[in-house]
Amino acid sequence: MGSLDAVARIIEKSNKILMTTHVNPDGDAVGSLLGLGLALVNSGKDVMMVTAAPIPAVYQYLPGSELLQLPSMLSTREFEAGVVLDCTDLSRIGGDLPELLNGAGSVVNIDHHISNTHFGDVNAVDPKAAATGEIVLDLLLLMGIPVTPDIATNLYTALITDTGSFRHQNTTARCHRTAAVLLEYGADHVLVHNCLYEQRTLSSLMLLKAGLETLSLSKDGRIAWMAISYEDILSSGCNMEDCEGIIDYPKSLRGVEVGILFKEVKPGEIKVSFRSKQYLDVNRLAASFGGGGHERAAGCTVKGNLADAVAMIVRTTEEHLRLAMNNGGVS
Amino acid sequence: MGSLDAVARIIEKSNKILMTTHVNPDGDAVGSLLGLGLALVNSGKDVMMVTAAPIPAVYQYLPGSELLQLPSMLSTREFEAGVVLDCTDLSRIGGDLPELLNGAGSVVNIDHHISNTHFGDVNAVDPKAAATGEIVLDLLLLMGIPVTPDIATNLYTALITDTGSFRHQNTTARCHRTAAVLLEYGADHVLVHNCLYEQRTLSSLMLLKAGLETLSLSKDGRIAWMAISYEDILSSGCNMEDCEGIIDYPKSLRGVEVGILFKEVKPGEIKVSFRSKQYLDVNRLAASFGGGGHERAAGCTVKGNLADAVAMIVRTTEEHLRLAMNNGGVS
Repeated sequence: MGSLDAVARIIEKSNKILMTTHVNPDGDAVGSLLGLGLALVNSGKDVMMVTAAPIPAVYQYLPGSELLQLPSMLSTREFEAGVVLDCTDLSRIGGDLPELLNGAGSVVNIDHHISNTHFGDVNAVDPKAAATGEIVLDLLLLMGIPVTPDIATNLYTALITDTGSFRHQNTTARCHRTAAVLLEYGADHVLVHNCLYEQRTLSSLMLLKAGLETLSLSKDGRIAWMAISYEDILSSGCNMEDCEGIIDYPKSLRGVEVGILFKEVKPGEIKVSFRSKQYLDVNRLAASFGGGGHERAAGCTVKGNLADAVAMIVRTTEEHLRLAMNNGGVS
Repeated sequence: MGSLDAVARIIEKSNKILMTTHVNPDGDAVGSLLGLGLALVNSGKDVMMVTAAPIPAVYQYLPGSELLQLPSMLSTREFEAGVVLDCTDLSRIGGDLPELLNGAGSVVNIDHHISNTHFGDVNAVDPKAAATGEIVLDLLLLMGIPVTPDIATNLYTALITDTGSFRHQNTTARCHRTAAVLLEYGADHVLVHNCLYEQRTLSSLMLLKAGLETLSLSKDGRIAWMAISYEDILSSGCNMEDCEGIIDYPKSLRGVEVGILFKEVKPGEIKVSFRSKQYLDVNRLAASFGGGGHERAAGCTVKGNLADAVAMIVRTTEEHLRLAMNNGGVS
C-alpha cells in the first residue's frame, strides 16, 4: 500500500496531469485510463487523457472515451504530473508521449505486469493484480474519490478483458471481490458483455466458416489448427480485429492440448498464434520462430508459403509436445 | 435465514437422507446436489444422491459424480429426510422419486426459481439467488460443515452455469462474492472452464460450419437466423448436446436484436430457439407457437418443411419486433 500512498500524494498535489497507456491498447489499458481519468476530472483536475493512436472501435462504448485525445490535439505540452497505466516500459507508449512525460514534474507508473521496468518516479506495480483496473480501484478507495457508475463500467471492462471474463488461470478471489464492488457502484455489466462479445460482424463469421473448413488434427489428436489464406481474408472483407477469437476454436476441441491459427496477413507473410491448455509452454515454442508471449498464449510471424509454414510449424509443435510429455508434462 | 435454520435442523437430526434434483439436470442442479451431498457424506450421514436418469456426460468431471445412483440401484426405499435441489415442483423430479420422497419423514426444498411451488415440509426458496449453489454455500457456512475443494468445485460449477460465467443479467455482487469464497476454498476454476467450454467435438464444429453457411439477416439487420437441416445433423454425426451454443452465433452479430436457430431434429419436425438482446420478449413470441421459456431465451417446436417454417417464423418475429418498437421497446 506504501506505493499507492505515494501515488495518491503526487496526484493530490498536481493539477495539470497527462495520462496515457500502451500502444494497441486492450480493455485493461483503456478501461484503467478512463476509469482513473474520469475520477480525476470529477475531482476538478485538469486532466488530458492521451493515446498515441485512436483506440480500437470495440472500446468506443466506454464512458468518457470521447475525452481521449491524440498527441497532436494537446493544447499544452507542460504537465505537473504524468500517469502511465498498464504499461511495462516507456517505449511501449508510442508517439512522442515518452518525451512529453520526461518533461512532466513526476511520472507515476501504475501496472500489474511482472516485467514492468519501474520507469516512474513513483511505481505502483502489483504483479498479483490480474488487471491494472484492480489497482486503480484500490487507489480511488484510498483517495476517497467517489466511484461513479461510469468509472465502475470502465474498471469492470479492465477486469474482464484481462481475466477472459473470469475464465483465465489468473482469476483470483480478489478479482471476484473487485467485480462485486464494481457492480455495487453501478458497473453496467450487461452493456459491457453486449459491447465486447455481441458485436460480431457478418464478415468475421464468414471468416470463421472459412477457417473451420481447414480445421485439422494431428494423428494423436493433441494438436489442432486452422489456416486462413490471404484470399480468405480478402474475400471475407475482414480486418485484423475480425480475426480475434478464431484461435479459440482449435483449442476448444476435446483432447487437444495445443491450438494453432495460421493467418496469411500478406502474400507470403504468415502470422501464427499458439494456445495451450495445460502443459505445453508455447512461449518457448514461439520463441524458436523468433516470436514470444506467455506460457499459454504466444505467437510468431514466418515468411513463405502457407502450406509449407503449416507443415513446418505443426512438425515442430509435435516435437515440443513429445519433449513436454517425456518431461512429465513440464516443457 | 429463518428457513435455512429449519433446513439445517432437519438435516442435523436425520441420518438416512435421499437427495435429488430435476430431470435433464444442468450444472446448477448437479453441482448443488453433489456439493451438498459430499458435505453431508463428510459429516457422516448415510446419503443417497439419486437422479432419474444418468447425468449428461459434460458433468461427469464433477467430484463425487461417481456416487450418483439411479432409482433402480437404491438399497433402501426408506428415508428420514428427502432433500430436493434446484427444482420448481415435485413433478419435475422424474421416475418414481416423487413417491419415494412422499414416504420420507420430511422433505426439504432448496431452490432459487421464483416459480417454485413450495412443495416441501421446509422450503428454502430464494429467488434473489442467481443459482441454487449460492443457497447451498450459505447452508454449509450456517451448519459449520467444512467446504472442501471438491465441494467448492461443484458449487462453482453451479454458479457459473446459471450465470453464463458471470455474463448474464442475473449476475450480482453476491454471485461474485460467492465465487471469491469458493476460489478461496479451493474450487478448481481452470478445470471447470476446461471441462465445460473446451470439450467441443469435431462434429459439433462441422455442424457449426454447416449452420454458418445458412446464416441470414432480415432486411433491417435486427433478426438473424441459421437453419440446420436433418441431413446436416445426420452427416455431421452430431447428437443434441453438440448443438448447444450454436444459437449464440446469430444473436452475437452487431445490431441484431433477435437470434433464431432452426434445427430439423426429425424429418418434418423443427425445433426453434429464440434469443433476444434487449427488448423483445421471446417468451411471448415462442408462446404464439405453443412454446415458452424466458423473456430473453425461449423455444418452440413446429411441424412441416424447414424452409416454410423459417419463412413463417421470421415473418412473425418481424411483426413482434415491429410492435415492440412501437411500444417504445417494451413488448
